[in-house]
Amino acid sequence: MSKKILVLPGDGIGPEIITEAHRILDWVIADSGVAIEVEEGLVGGISYDVHGEPLTAETLKAAQASDAVLFGAIGGPKWDGTVAYDKRPEQGLLDLRKGMNAFANLRSAVCFPALADASSLKREFIEGLDILFVRELMGGVYFGEPRGIETLEDGTRVGLNTQRYADWEIERVARVAFEMARKRGSHVTSVEKANVMESGVLWREVVTKMGADEYPDVKLDHMYADNCAMQLVKNPKQFDVIVTDNLFGDLLSDAAAMLTGSLGMLPSASLSDEGPGLYEPIHGSAPDIAGQGIANPIAAILSLAMALRYSLDMGGYAEKIEAAVANVLESGTRTVDIMADGCTKVGTTGMGDAILAE
Amino acid sequence: MSKKILVLPGDGIGPEIITEAHRILDWVIADSGVAIEVEEGLVGGISYDVHGEPLTAETLKAAQASDAVLFGAIGGPKWDGTVAYDKRPEQGLLDLRKGMNAFANLRSAVCFPALADASSLKREFIEGLDILFVRELMGGVYFGEPRGIETLEDGTRVGLNTQRYADWEIERVARVAFEMARKRGSHVTSVEKANVMESGVLWREVVTKMGADEYPDVKLDHMYADNCAMQLVKNPKQFDVIVTDNLFGDLLSDAAAMLTGSLGMLPSASLSDEGPGLYEPIHGSAPDIAGQGIANPIAAILSLAMALRYSLDMGGYAEKIEAAVANVLESGTRTVDIMADGCTKVGTTGMGDAILAE
Ligand SMILES: CC(C)[C@H](C(=O)O)[C@@H](O)C(=O)O
Ligand SMILES: CC(C)[C@H](C(=O)O)[C@@H](O)C(=O)O
Repeated sequence: MSKKILVLPGDGIGPEIITEAHRILDWVIADSGVAIEVEEGLVGGISYDVHGEPLTAETLKAAQASDAVLFGAIGGPKWDGTVAYDKRPEQGLLDLRKGMNAFANLRSAVCFPALADASSLKREFIEGLDILFVRELMGGVYFGEPRGIETLEDGTRVGLNTQRYADWEIERVARVAFEMARKRGSHVTSVEKANVMESGVLWREVVTKMGADEYPDVKLDHMYADNCAMQLVKNPKQFDVIVTDNLFGDLLSDAAAMLTGSLGMLPSASLSDEGPGLYEPIHGSAPDIAGQGIANPIAAILSLAMALRYSLDMGGYAEKIEAAVANVLESGTRTVDIMADGCTKVGTTGMGDAILAE
Repeated sequence: MSKKILVLPGDGIGPEIITEAHRILDWVIADSGVAIEVEEGLVGGISYDVHGEPLTAETLKAAQASDAVLFGAIGGPKWDGTVAYDKRPEQGLLDLRKGMNAFANLRSAVCFPALADASSLKREFIEGLDILFVRELMGGVYFGEPRGIETLEDGTRVGLNTQRYADWEIERVARVAFEMARKRGSHVTSVEKANVMESGVLWREVVTKMGADEYPDVKLDHMYADNCAMQLVKNPKQFDVIVTDNLFGDLLSDAAAMLTGSLGMLPSASLSDEGPGLYEPIHGSAPDIAGQGIANPIAAILSLAMALRYSLDMGGYAEKIEAAVANVLESGTRTVDIMADGCTKVGTTGMGDAILAE
């Protein structure tokens, strides 16, 4: 039976960077002889423009029927505030995550040695940095009801969102974190705000119990989210695996990615219990540089590598791609976002060429 | 009529650092001849231990009847998870903020030149850094109802919190930010997550309207909270005033404070429309070093300076204290948290002595 990858380039720099990942995928197919069917679809603003929906039922069905979805980026000023709230590009991504049951978002903040000097942090704070975030992706304030903007009788308008976590939602994502930690540094830091939020109290209780009952071999710490934000800046190397909710994970993993100086480099995987995985760069659609051919395609290419490893059982090719990326960086080939003295500047396609050549 | 300051040392290192601020206050009283009545009270875990409540009605009354409250820090492992949720030390602080109507929390992330090397960031990224956070402090998920942990019929437990912002809550805090910006760099960055939360949509709408109608001279940007977390790491000097909600403000201002390498140095002021202000260090109760006489009292002393400036109309003494702190740092006197080669290490009292001597 042939395997299937759905490619959703999306908006902004999405199409440019995904084109490069697609070229690498074509090479993998040719080189391995494995039959991988590649389908393309629309998501986000472009899907709204064409179909009036940021994610159509057909595209979601195609995603569910695939082995992996490779996603580019979505959104941009074109749609900001100009389309109905439930039709905005971001809703397409949220519906895709939900529809694929992708509850565990894995994002690593890894420092590429060749790029350590691109960071605002001193080298000694990030050299060797390797944090894995396990972010809950299907719950919390992103999806909780009730929500919306209501007008009270006296005319006051109130914006409302609900943070809601069931014990089983916490359990399933915590389990992923503990399992990952066993394969890495055996250290989980669970992050919430239990000192002001009851959802955090339940979070801490569930994670504590699972740690004690099932993973006594894994070191477990608890940290308030504000303290975690500080500790990431102060001493990021203290962390191994960080497990946290949807909203805290959004902020903290982005801050951590930026610590490494390699934001344009970092891929993510969103996994369900069974079924296809969703793979996407951590960075966004960068509308300011879209269409100029200068975006860094490495995060998209490394997202493809993750898809090959986790969803297509082709870990060997994932390693080849990762090694090619490392070699290209060592050789001094750089897109503008990671440019440094003495390196050779290339565009999106040039970077794709260099990685393909490796 | 004599002025009144209520001093609430709280838990952990709170009493040690507040003792030093109190000595400075005694000097201000003696030197100025201004009659300032100083009262002491309990708050947090110590209040719970003595009275069974983290904030008694009497203490809140005393706070409301004062011109300023100088607060140390609260909480610690002694009470974590061992007392009922509505009796935990943090509830004392939240009730105090609410009871004082302190809706605008001003926190600056300033880089002290003498300490620039203590940061994990390279000097060029933080030298001259001066960000003012205006954090909404009386609303959002900190106070929204419904909240709690419920058990469903099938036994599932659900942790629940509610983010709720009324238009007038957003307006009053945004106004503080715009007014502050006019006295500084004339640039406000408003931070929310409007792309996933309707409360953020209303936030953006209200701030946009106020900016256009009343502060057209102030540059206004909007930024998603995850992007703000990244931008703080990437290029913190792009910011002047950041206005955001209670929860985002908690995380982002802590991360920003840590960027400067000077967390033990940073004071905060929580202001209401009228009535007393609440002044407290940004740092927490640091239970791990409590009682050792090594905590850095500078944030507490600078909080006193803010109280003198904003609530007691004694800005001249605030400047004197701030200058004394700067001089002591320049001279190389350091507590252990900011110790560097070639400097003289002192304890909490030693730092207080040095600042008094100046
Ligand atoms: C685009 C947006 C909806 C999304 C999120 O908030 O989850 C993005 O920031 C991310 O982290 O993938
Ligand atoms: C102690 C805690 C309740 C408090 C908060 O979350 O507001 C603290 O982190 C702060 O920022 O002052």
